[in-house]
Amino acid sequence: MNLKKFDEYTKVVDSEVRKALSGKPKKLYNATRHITFAGGKRIRPLLCILSCKSVGGDTKNAIKTASAIELIHTFTLIHDDIMDQDEFRRGVYSVHRAYGEPTAILAGDLLFSKAFEISDPSVIKILAIATAEICEGQELDMNFEKRDYVTENEYLEMIRKKTAVLFEAATKSGAVIGRGTKAQIKALSDYGLDIGMAFQIHDDILGITADEKKLGKPVGSDIGRRKKSIVVIKGLDFLEGSNRERFIEILNKEKKGKNDIKSAISLLQSSGVINYCRKISDDFIKDAKKKLGKIPDSDAKMDLLNIADFIVERRI
Amino acid sequence: MNLKKFDEYTKVVDSEVRKALSGKPKKLYNATRHITFAGGKRIRPLLCILSCKSVGGDTKNAIKTASAIELIHTFTLIHDDIMDQDEFRRGVYSVHRAYGEPTAILAGDLLFSKAFEISDPSVIKILAIATAEICEGQELDMNFEKRDYVTENEYLEMIRKKTAVLFEAATKSGAVIGRGTKAQIKALSDYGLDIGMAFQIHDDILGITADEKKLGKPVGSDIGRRKKSIVVIKGLDFLEGSNRERFIEILNKEKKGKNDIKSAISLLQSSGVINYCRKISDDFIKDAKKKLGKIPDSDAKMDLLNIADFIVERRI
Repeated sequence: MNLKKFDEYTKVVDSEVRKALSGKPKKLYNATRHITFAGGKRIRPLLCILSCKSVGGDTKNAIKTASAIELIHTFTLIHDDIMDQDEFRRGVYSVHRAYGEPTAILAGDLLFSKAFEISDPSVIKILAIATAEICEGQELDMNFEKRDYVTENEYLEMIRKKTAVLFEAATKSGAVIGRGTKAQIKALSDYGLDIGMAFQIHDDILGITADEKKLGKPVGSDIGRRKKSIVVIKGLDFLEGSNRERFIEILNKEKKGKNDIKSAISLLQSSGVINYCRKISDDFIKDAKKKLGKIPDSDAKMDLLNIADFIVERRI
Repeated sequence: MNLKKFDEYTKVVDSEVRKALSGKPKKLYNATRHITFAGGKRIRPLLCILSCKSVGGDTKNAIKTASAIELIHTFTLIHDDIMDQDEFRRGVYSVHRAYGEPTAILAGDLLFSKAFEISDPSVIKILAIATAEICEGQELDMNFEKRDYVTENEYLEMIRKKTAVLFEAATKSGAVIGRGTKAQIKALSDYGLDIGMAFQIHDDILGITADEKKLGKPVGSDIGRRKKSIVVIKGLDFLEGSNRERFIEILNKEKKGKNDIKSAISLLQSSGVINYCRKISDDFIKDAKKKLGKIPDSDAKMDLLNIADFIVERRI
């Protein structure tokens, strides 16, 4: 599937986002737009709008909240990049690298404020609860870097918070704004949560397998910082003998060179772990699509089903 | 006046805040409580509650929003301390000094999220707009540090955003929750804005004149980092000849010793600028009290009048 189909929606969202992010001081507002308009697929806003439509709501009513969700997403990217000391995002410098850390912290805070300023008041609580969980998830993610081993279940709980709850908030708030029934709101929430899980797992896979130019940041950076991506966690299970020893040795190296990262990636790719991870994300997508059973058939529902597939097919 | 009178309110607020800040991961939630419960006068929550009461509202309805405002206040303190590289706050280590910068950034974000989670939905927009302005004000404050001279009007606009709008949001949201008339909401908003202006000016004065133990952070730190406090800005006008030259010389020194700071403070104190600044803050308090003319006489109104005086009488 090609997201170009939804250009009409993303244009309206982008214009709403641009409106929210014009102000003074100039440098601060420039910083809020820096990665916002350096790419981004606007999947979360689309999910909000299509969820609204799928329960018979007027998509116009969802635009502001959809835009708010993109602002929240961008805010978390900016702050995460500071915490993770990532220098690149979407093929450009991260905000703190381009504008300095103080302004990057503020730019994130400002995006967050603007999100709550423009969002529909009826879904504020949904968004606020999700954002709190995102913070908890990011803290877990950072804590995991210091640990040698993390279980699959711990990982799944971490990405539920760090990533999936914002997808859930997008679909749920769309359904609420569209005045869906309780059962429909539940179905769309669950669908959002599932595709969010798949999204993060697929992201972890792309972090190892993607083309660096498309990825917009260094391939293998998760290995570089001992991030417990699902590929790294399960890689430790899949690798055996000297391969496993070599992988752990690289993972624990204080300073890793390009060749170290390349070796670690080769080890992972030949271990079979990538296919195992693909299976997990595919299963989440299957579950997600099942949950839409309670939504009446429509173009919007078909779009949501296709987006679910897109989540694990995308190259970037 | 003594704020002890309001202990009943602050206890309820503190218990609401504590409830909002219990969760996991433990380290992250500990970080959110670190300076929250190391002091703080809870003036902003009190203003929200008393504003609600002064228009005939039930104070119970204002508790959650009052607590949300304290969470927002604390969130800005934590992030400001990172940006300003301040090591102490309320007599303890700042959050980033105690928990590391990544967790401090997240703790601020989490406080922010929780604020919007517990606040009354009817006043979310008021709080969100205020928070966006606080970000703008902090950016201005940082930009001013790099400049040699800042006008009094530029300063006043900066502190309106950085500090006063949150006082305004506190009194305004209290009045809205208490279902005040339009005129009452306007009067209480204006009162809040004025005492907020006075609060920051008084804070700037305390930064120079206070007892270090009571202040909870180093006296004269504004001079240390070239912060354009009103005392520094007007000090440059009040000082003359060799005293002015000496003051500018210290201000521009890359590394300032304790004796440099002491000399600069002495220069400011003998210049007469402190009294000039007191006059500005006193005038804001006078204006603030006038604005309460539109609020019917009551115990709550008397409390608000007394709090206005307290703002510029406090030693900490």
